Amino acid sequence: MKKHASLDGLVEALRRLPGVGPKSAQRMAFHLLQHDRDGLSMLGHACTEALTKIQHCELCNTFTELSVCETCLDAERDTSLLCIVETPADLLMIEQTMTFKGLYFVLMGRLSPLDGVGPKDIHLTKLVQRASNGVVREVVLATNFTNEGEATAHYLGETLKARGLTVTRLARGVPVGGELEYVDAGTLARAMLDRRAT
Amino acid sequence: MKKHASLDGLVEALRRLPGVGPKSAQRMAFHLLQHDRDGLSMLGHACTEALTKIQHCELCNTFTELSVCETCLDAERDTSLLCIVETPADLLMIEQTMTFKGLYFVLMGRLSPLDGVGPKDIHLTKLVQRASNGVVREVVLATNFTNEGEATAHYLGETLKARGLTVTRLARGVPVGGELEYVDAGTLARAMLDRRAT
Repeated sequence: MKKHASLDGLVEALRRLPGVGPKSAQRMAFHLLQHDRDGLSMLGHACTEALTKIQHCELCNTFTELSVCETCLDAERDTSLLCIVETPADLLMIEQTMTFKGLYFVLMGRLSPLDGVGPKDIHLTKLVQRASNGVVREVVLATNFTNEGEATAHYLGETLKARGLTVTRLARGVPVGGELEYVDAGTLARAMLDRRAT
Repeated sequence: MKKHASLDGLVEALRRLPGVGPKSAQRMAFHLLQHDRDGLSMLGHACTEALTKIQHCELCNTFTELSVCETCLDAERDTSLLCIVETPADLLMIEQTMTFKGLYFVLMGRLSPLDGVGPKDIHLTKLVQRASNGVVREVVLATNFTNEGEATAHYLGETLKARGLTVTRLARGVPVGGELEYVDAGTLARAMLDRRAT
């Protein structure tokens, strides 16, 4: 039970997962070896398969097995609407709401000069080309409402407005089900300023 | 981004890990695909390798790549001492303390009649054979101090004592660094009953 290359290798590999430390990795490895060898086999195959098959969509950057993803190929989508998100996970969340029938562009990141993430890293040139294809009329900025997400939205908004596009941003306000007493002051202030006629 | 077999497969496989739900599995998959393709490749190989190489030690049941593990083969170990633990993780913890120089027997579980785990599932016959080899003098019961672990220790203790072996149990008491005020009453009671001359 000392240095065993393949056991240590499995624990090391599991530690690469986000949020998994040495203790959890060991627990996961032992669990798989002892109680779920099928799962271990599945995980091995899934990793290898994902590595070879999954790539980025040529149009929107999201993960896909095709060269252009199914969403981009969907003929029923409104091609005049383009929603900009940071990650494929954000895209999935918006799809779950079933409120958006346009197309997407996934930045695969956000502007973060302190971390050395500049316009090139979020595929700015590709985005501008995509948005200036003459078909897109409105760009919906759906980056996160964090400092970096807001800065990215501002930067992209300015760049795209300069090209004559309509640029919108997801509404900010009190969450559905939210009680005013427990909403933070910043959110409440924004909801007051952005109040709308009913 | 709808049904993609290999992406869904990866998320499904990651969900088999203990403590990983659908959201975490998705986050892990996206993290690996986006930021750590090396990690994805490592994980794939590690799983496949672990699956083919890691087996149970013929003597002590722990995980090993050999037919008999390095601990069991170690000529410097005291073969008259046998420590019984529930899992390979417990074995590693005891090894880390560097206070035990005997050999181990890993039950790979604990008695739990309600879950249908009986003596056969914890390799009782093999344990009795192992402990009755004429060399083992003392058996240290190091199962967990949970209800099931205690029940297992009691059952094994009776069985092994009947074969003339000395049976001991890890000491219970106040943890190192523990303050009496914050120790639970059960532990403190046990520490009082088991008090020893200094």
